Amino acid sequence: MEKWDGNEGTSAFHMPEWMQIQFADQKQEFNKRPTKIGRRSLSRSISQSSTDSYSSAASYTDSSDDETSPRDKQQKNSKGSSDFCVKNIKQAEFGRREIEIAEQEMPALMALRKRAQGEKPLAGAKIVGCTHITAQTAVLMETLGALGAQCRWAACNIYSTLNEVAAALAESGFPVFAWKGESEDDFWWCIDRCVNVEGWQPNMILDDGGDLTHWIYKKYPNMFKKIKGIVEESVTGVHRLYQLSKAGKLCVPAMNVNDSVTKQKFDNLYCCRESILDGLKRTTDMMFGGKQVVVCGYGEVGKGCCAALKAMGSIVYVTEIDPICALQACMDGFRLVKLNEVIRQVDIVITCTGNKNVVTREHLDRMKNSCIVCNMGHSNTEIDVASLRTPELTWERVRSQVDHVIWPDGKRIVLLAEGRLLNLSCSTVPTFVLSITATTQALALIELYNAPEGRYKQDVYLLPKKMDEYVASLHLPTFDAHLTELTDEQAKYLGLNKNGPFKPNYYRY
Amino acid sequence: MEKWDGNEGTSAFHMPEWMQIQFADQKQEFNKRPTKIGRRSLSRSISQSSTDSYSSAASYTDSSDDETSPRDKQQKNSKGSSDFCVKNIKQAEFGRREIEIAEQEMPALMALRKRAQGEKPLAGAKIVGCTHITAQTAVLMETLGALGAQCRWAACNIYSTLNEVAAALAESGFPVFAWKGESEDDFWWCIDRCVNVEGWQPNMILDDGGDLTHWIYKKYPNMFKKIKGIVEESVTGVHRLYQLSKAGKLCVPAMNVNDSVTKQKFDNLYCCRESILDGLKRTTDMMFGGKQVVVCGYGEVGKGCCAALKAMGSIVYVTEIDPICALQACMDGFRLVKLNEVIRQVDIVITCTGNKNVVTREHLDRMKNSCIVCNMGHSNTEIDVASLRTPELTWERVRSQVDHVIWPDGKRIVLLAEGRLLNLSCSTVPTFVLSITATTQALALIELYNAPEGRYKQDVYLLPKKMDEYVASLHLPTFDAHLTELTDEQAKYLGLNKNGPFKPNYYRY
Amino acid sequence: MEKWDGNEGTSAFHMPEWMQIQFADQKQEFNKRPTKIGRRSLSRSISQSSTDSYSSAASYTDSSDDETSPRDKQQKNSKGSSDFCVKNIKQAEFGRREIEIAEQEMPALMALRKRAQGEKPLAGAKIVGCTHITAQTAVLMETLGALGAQCRWAACNIYSTLNEVAAALAESGFPVFAWKGESEDDFWWCIDRCVNVEGWQPNMILDDGGDLTHWIYKKYPNMFKKIKGIVEESVTGVHRLYQLSKAGKLCVPAMNVNDSVTKQKFDNLYCCRESILDGLKRTTDMMFGGKQVVVCGYGEVGKGCCAALKAMGSIVYVTEIDPICALQACMDGFRLVKLNEVIRQVDIVITCTGNKNVVTREHLDRMKNSCIVCNMGHSNTEIDVASLRTPELTWERVRSQVDHVIWPDGKRIVLLAEGRLLNLSCSTVPTFVLSITATTQALALIELYNAPEGRYKQDVYLLPKKMDEYVASLHLPTFDAHLTELTDEQAKYLGLNKNGPFKPNYYRY
Amino acid sequence: MEKWDGNEGTSAFHMPEWMQIQFADQKQEFNKRPTKIGRRSLSRSISQSSTDSYSSAASYTDSSDDETSPRDKQQKNSKGSSDFCVKNIKQAEFGRREIEIAEQEMPALMALRKRAQGEKPLAGAKIVGCTHITAQTAVLMETLGALGAQCRWAACNIYSTLNEVAAALAESGFPVFAWKGESEDDFWWCIDRCVNVEGWQPNMILDDGGDLTHWIYKKYPNMFKKIKGIVEESVTGVHRLYQLSKAGKLCVPAMNVNDSVTKQKFDNLYCCRESILDGLKRTTDMMFGGKQVVVCGYGEVGKGCCAALKAMGSIVYVTEIDPICALQACMDGFRLVKLNEVIRQVDIVITCTGNKNVVTREHLDRMKNSCIVCNMGHSNTEIDVASLRTPELTWERVRSQVDHVIWPDGKRIVLLAEGRLLNLSCSTVPTFVLSITATTQALALIELYNAPEGRYKQDVYLLPKKMDEYVASLHLPTFDAHLTELTDEQAKYLGLNKNGPFKPNYYRY
Repeated sequence: MEKWDGNEGTSAFHMPEWMQIQFADQKQEFNKRPTKIGRRSLSRSISQSSTDSYSSAASYTDSSDDETSPRDKQQKNSKGSSDFCVKNIKQAEFGRREIEIAEQEMPALMALRKRAQGEKPLAGAKIVGCTHITAQTAVLMETLGALGAQCRWAACNIYSTLNEVAAALAESGFPVFAWKGESEDDFWWCIDRCVNVEGWQPNMILDDGGDLTHWIYKKYPNMFKKIKGIVEESVTGVHRLYQLSKAGKLCVPAMNVNDSVTKQKFDNLYCCRESILDGLKRTTDMMFGGKQVVVCGYGEVGKGCCAALKAMGSIVYVTEIDPICALQACMDGFRLVKLNEVIRQVDIVITCTGNKNVVTREHLDRMKNSCIVCNMGHSNTEIDVASLRTPELTWERVRSQVDHVIWPDGKRIVLLAEGRLLNLSCSTVPTFVLSITATTQALALIELYNAPEGRYKQDVYLLPKKMDEYVASLHLPTFDAHLTELTDEQAKYLGLNKNGPFKPNYYRY
Repeated sequence: MEKWDGNEGTSAFHMPEWMQIQFADQKQEFNKRPTKIGRRSLSRSISQSSTDSYSSAASYTDSSDDETSPRDKQQKNSKGSSDFCVKNIKQAEFGRREIEIAEQEMPALMALRKRAQGEKPLAGAKIVGCTHITAQTAVLMETLGALGAQCRWAACNIYSTLNEVAAALAESGFPVFAWKGESEDDFWWCIDRCVNVEGWQPNMILDDGGDLTHWIYKKYPNMFKKIKGIVEESVTGVHRLYQLSKAGKLCVPAMNVNDSVTKQKFDNLYCCRESILDGLKRTTDMMFGGKQVVVCGYGEVGKGCCAALKAMGSIVYVTEIDPICALQACMDGFRLVKLNEVIRQVDIVITCTGNKNVVTREHLDRMKNSCIVCNMGHSNTEIDVASLRTPELTWERVRSQVDHVIWPDGKRIVLLAEGRLLNLSCSTVPTFVLSITATTQALALIELYNAPEGRYKQDVYLLPKKMDEYVASLHLPTFDAHLTELTDEQAKYLGLNKNGPFKPNYYRY
Repeated sequence: MEKWDGNEGTSAFHMPEWMQIQFADQKQEFNKRPTKIGRRSLSRSISQSSTDSYSSAASYTDSSDDETSPRDKQQKNSKGSSDFCVKNIKQAEFGRREIEIAEQEMPALMALRKRAQGEKPLAGAKIVGCTHITAQTAVLMETLGALGAQCRWAACNIYSTLNEVAAALAESGFPVFAWKGESEDDFWWCIDRCVNVEGWQPNMILDDGGDLTHWIYKKYPNMFKKIKGIVEESVTGVHRLYQLSKAGKLCVPAMNVNDSVTKQKFDNLYCCRESILDGLKRTTDMMFGGKQVVVCGYGEVGKGCCAALKAMGSIVYVTEIDPICALQACMDGFRLVKLNEVIRQVDIVITCTGNKNVVTREHLDRMKNSCIVCNMGHSNTEIDVASLRTPELTWERVRSQVDHVIWPDGKRIVLLAEGRLLNLSCSTVPTFVLSITATTQALALIELYNAPEGRYKQDVYLLPKKMDEYVASLHLPTFDAHLTELTDEQAKYLGLNKNGPFKPNYYRY
Repeated sequence: MEKWDGNEGTSAFHMPEWMQIQFADQKQEFNKRPTKIGRRSLSRSISQSSTDSYSSAASYTDSSDDETSPRDKQQKNSKGSSDFCVKNIKQAEFGRREIEIAEQEMPALMALRKRAQGEKPLAGAKIVGCTHITAQTAVLMETLGALGAQCRWAACNIYSTLNEVAAALAESGFPVFAWKGESEDDFWWCIDRCVNVEGWQPNMILDDGGDLTHWIYKKYPNMFKKIKGIVEESVTGVHRLYQLSKAGKLCVPAMNVNDSVTKQKFDNLYCCRESILDGLKRTTDMMFGGKQVVVCGYGEVGKGCCAALKAMGSIVYVTEIDPICALQACMDGFRLVKLNEVIRQVDIVITCTGNKNVVTREHLDRMKNSCIVCNMGHSNTEIDVASLRTPELTWERVRSQVDHVIWPDGKRIVLLAEGRLLNLSCSTVPTFVLSITATTQALALIELYNAPEGRYKQDVYLLPKKMDEYVASLHLPTFDAHLTELTDEQAKYLGLNKNGPFKPNYYRY
């Protein structure tokens, strides 16, 4: 009814530089990679999100007394299978308990399992996955299994695997290839072990970062003939898919689960509202009340940070480039300034722009003593950390993830996580958020696997709004929340189906 | 790049019932209307928004000692012109002061005027307008004049004209045909006087409610040959245009300024956040602290109401039909309930759904004594007020806009504005919000008038995002807000033009 | 129980200048007053609070078609009594409805009435009262009657009497002497008619402002022999009592109900949190979002104003003289500034200090165009309004209670209520707050009337904490609030009586 | 100046049971203690607060490779002194850096040092101290030194000493006797080494918990002849002093710094507002948004917890026994309930009452699965943890400070810190709060040491309000806060000294 494409062709849709560069890099890298996996820059193997390691308050037994590489070990689970490679299969019991605890906080997946007692929407599905291996992922995998799928899994990050959970999955029969502290060679070896199997060929891909997808593209392109679709979760992986699509090289439908409303609002607004406080407290033990803070960027992340800090009694300034977001900041009660106007007076600088060099050396030079600098935005580009690696400045690591950078006159800047994402490095991600993501992934797999011929072409799709709404509805019981149903008369009046979708696609929430 | 049309064809885009019905009505009405304007149901002449009269705290001299119809008067302004029809040209001075006061709060239009000293983007434009005639509209009209346009104007509402302002406009040379308290016949007569002029034919239409557009459609269809475009501001008028477009009958480009981001967020979220408090206080003098409130609907309006009441110490419950909005309500700290769960205990019921019969007689029967019921949503359909017109209930008008409905057992319900929009009936709209709308209208006129051949077809368009951003930027100085500019390097990194637009069209803000 | 003056002797208790001056004035005035009440400056007759008239949204029939003075009328109620003097006894029915509506919002007094069915704690009490005559006062008076007391009543303010309510009280048998628009001579005549009665002598005084008390002191000092106590509600009246006590002239016990916790928190923090928004909206229709505001003073009133404006999206600065309150402002998220630092940039200036000349002509000269200036603090001393009465400034009354003061260069300052209390002049006081005060007054009367010989001496007392707690508990049902009771074991552990008092006297709440 | 016990005699001041019992215990214990310190129950040696260990995010080298008791070591600092006993004098450098970092966040003490360049208000003072030995304490001690005092110091808690800081103090010449992990025998030995010195006798005591004071009382009562006063910081210690005073056994003046306004508001309201979030996140990684929480008690601590959780999107219920606090909770927007009404539905239970057995086994039995239970109140009495030590319940330690208590049906309750104080056990105390306490202690020492004969008697005093205000003013520069000064005219009008105190003693803030 309404044309939203009036602005197409404007520069907002031009491919940003960093995507172009990355694309160039990728092609180069993939081309030069020999069949036998050799030396490859670590920076490539680790997709954007995978260099940010999740911290966890859980104390796992990581005593690396056992120095043998898992690849050199002979392990069998209690049923006699050895189709897996984990650190230590004996840690399965501890991992199982973690999974059970996670199950309690992922009611939506458990509800899907319950429904699966009658129908098996993934019967026949052969899913190869490459994600963080955590208790939450385990709940997802076991749910996929309950829905009828066979799964093989590798880690999307060389640091983030919880060995105990991997062991528990292996023990219960999942072919898992992952451990904490893989080398780059291990990383690709594990992925290869997932897909390069005698007598088993995947027909679905669940990826987080795009490494698995790319591996198959480069090594086993024929495999795509049987693959019904890709579900991708990360910003980076989604961008890669759009590039492939644009280049006409995407040969199966792909589902972008990163941009679903529910995930966006939860990961960005609601989750950052909490993690900014958590990250600052865990690293600095500072008091928020009365502190002057400048937040660069008033998108969803910035909105979350500002709301939380204001609520805790901080005085918050905002910088923005977009006049609409700027006007929102004004109406929400924040002074809109240029960074230079307040840089001398603030106690904390937080970047949430997705941009690069938002905080420059010049800004850093002008900050007052003890100013805290951290990044909640995208990647590690926002603060020009490289500019601080000069001889006249002294770096002092005072705690894990906390550096004091000391100027010749004694001034100290407190730099958190070396400019990487504070929320990933210094706080934890609540299971509830992970539950939303995992449920979205499961539904996307079901949708792609069951879609009638022709519904999805070789393109990148968003989850249908109705499924987005379904994900949301599965999480309402957590809050003992009771949804109202439309009467027939009301549905007719509004021109809506009683079961949704309830909003047009352009609705802003 | 991204396909957002994945859901097209779903019921969310089916034409809702009330639009269909209205459309049918219209055709019927327009067909049966004779050349000489005769009796016609008032309900037609008054588009949806125009039955809700704006209240204003300003005390204008409305002493209707003068009973002569303006149409029967012979009036001339000081320059000798009589090409206008207002209540009393002698009130011009008082009206001028009101306009001057409004100018102080509409800096964006004043900035456009300043720019117009160099260029006249509306030179040659002949604009016929039909809007509320208020001091703010006068600032808009005089700005259009400064930008080079000739204007003729009628009122879109028979009650809302400020006679003094109309007089001031007439005095300064604007052909204005409007007064407070027009009959329906007057209403159409005024519109006709704007368009049916010897030697002057409009080439642009600025409409609020669609009445002017329809008049030209029915009476002077040939006029559209010279018309470059329509700018429409109201929900109702916009729906009419989409219907025309769908029916293939829209013969010029039209700009929907109702759905621009800035207007939506200000009119709905930010403005309602304030007007819910204002409307309740002015009518009931109640204390918000500790009161239990249920807000039906958690769209932008509901979000604004909930935020304000929570901030003032009320305990707020929310009802929703959409699971995504419902989950937002949960995360924002509101208990999501069905209306029946709390109807016996709440002190206030507020509807913000856009739906009909959300509060039924059954609900009203169960409310506790002194419960306040009001509507902040759409039109007057949300509360089933008709169901209260039964013999066993007594109505007592206790104040302007406040009725006590009394049950046989003595229970009283406090019904505000008879279920019409509280924010329009019982509070005022800040000039700042009107400024945003007026600036958007001016820019839409400039865009349509200057667009190269072929940019806009016979369809309904949203204001280009860049203009939306421009409207926002013109309002930032009000807040002494300082926007940051991208460096060349940053713009390249983000793939953006330094001057915007800064976001893709689907961005949710 | 606690002696308010226990801390006297510290410098904080030195008698402030304005009290001293007032005291001097009083003596002078009382001395020069002849037996026959003659001309007397109005400013004296009206105690501090009584020059601030309450506004009310209720539309009473004030058509002064009837110009006859009530003192010259012969009126009888339906029972034949003529022991009253009101504007028009025929308005009783309308007034009765107002009283019934008020009863619904004063559940605490209604609860006292219910208890009074068994016991009559005020049996034999003869109360003479001098307060605002409103529906809420009527509920108090009829409650005192239900508790066994006989009452005679006058108004404490020449403007604030609601004639219909006075009529309703007279009709139901209360000797009421009050009407809206009394002359000063009327004012004292009415008071005299309350106390100077054949065969009836008061034994309790309920005063608001101290005028009644002083009248008896000066005219009928012997009456105090039978009087068991005075209950005083206003700041001014309380100060007068402390002065009398200090001077050794207080000859009966007096209860200061102004400084009870519940009243203080409600009247100041909670009520001002709402009335600042209400007062600003009703007078200026301004939008709060994004506005820069400076609040002078961070006591309870300032805290309420700041919290409300911050919640509505204003950017709030605070000035303070007291470092402890200043530190609270910091921790609550407000920039602490000197007025001069922000005076050029703010959109609104609000005074809440209790001090004088906080906003001087120099400040006013530096404010920006359209800056709004208002007072929420004490009396009308905070803004130096007198300094604006100079020839070069033009005053323009744009609405009721709103003046534009215009500088020679065209700059306008928006002055509200001529610097008098915004909350009294431009917003209404919720019934709930009045209920707390009225209940406190009733309990104070009961306590003083029933106290055993010797519990209270000729001094000024605060209500015992236990009664304060009782007032609070009587208001909890309004919120459907359920109090927890201590177990015997817990009470013993805490060393508390299960029925309270629950806190030491110094507890800060 | 003000006598804390001025209100004694009201029931609120009856000595609570737990104080009586404790008092009895003490006497018993002290009596039975032989001259040679032998076995004594640990529970005695550790005053209430000292069993709650502070957690710290700082990673100190606690590798206990060195098993030798410090008492058996021969250590000398670089100046050759051996008048100290710490873990390892070689750790001094690391400790010095920690002290320097703390100095940056304790500007008030640094300001005192600067003033001390001219005057030495503690010249001649010989202070014996017994507090936590942290970097912040070190800043206090070195400030006392700069002000002219000689100090000897022991730890008030056997776990809380930071060995590196103790080493740094010893290195710079302070006789410090403390290490982390003292035995009870060590604890008293250290205290004894502080006071039992040849040729040095203390004339001031700074105590935290009362252990030092009691040691001197019992072992060296004659020492009090030279002692000018005691400054005590803890709730427990203060109660002990009031008991001594009541029993007529207090032989020197004592200053209660625990109940100063600034400390109370910071430690309770502002600090708990932050630490409740911090403590819950660090232990459970839970998401606050949408969670249902019940907070037992709405004193300062409860107010802080409620405000923070509400701001983060939790739905908060409150229980109270005091109707005044209950009414505050209502007005602040919280449903006031009895615990039983919501116990089945809440996700978190937080106790802040100071009472005992607020959460009973019966409540615990009714909680839903995964409910989190924690204590922010007083001591460890509020949750009846003992009732969970029954055979049918399984305890599982899932993280440090986090236990799952598992019911036979599989239901798990998440118990934090075994019911001890969450804020001390699971979050950190910001330096800023410690700075306020330390400054208050320093000023109290100065006041007692310099007070003219007769100003203080053998009683317990609160810090004079003027000093409280001074502490606050010393912390304002941290926030770049600018205090307004009264003009002479204003001071006269208010009856105040321009330098304060600005409020009467009963002011509630």
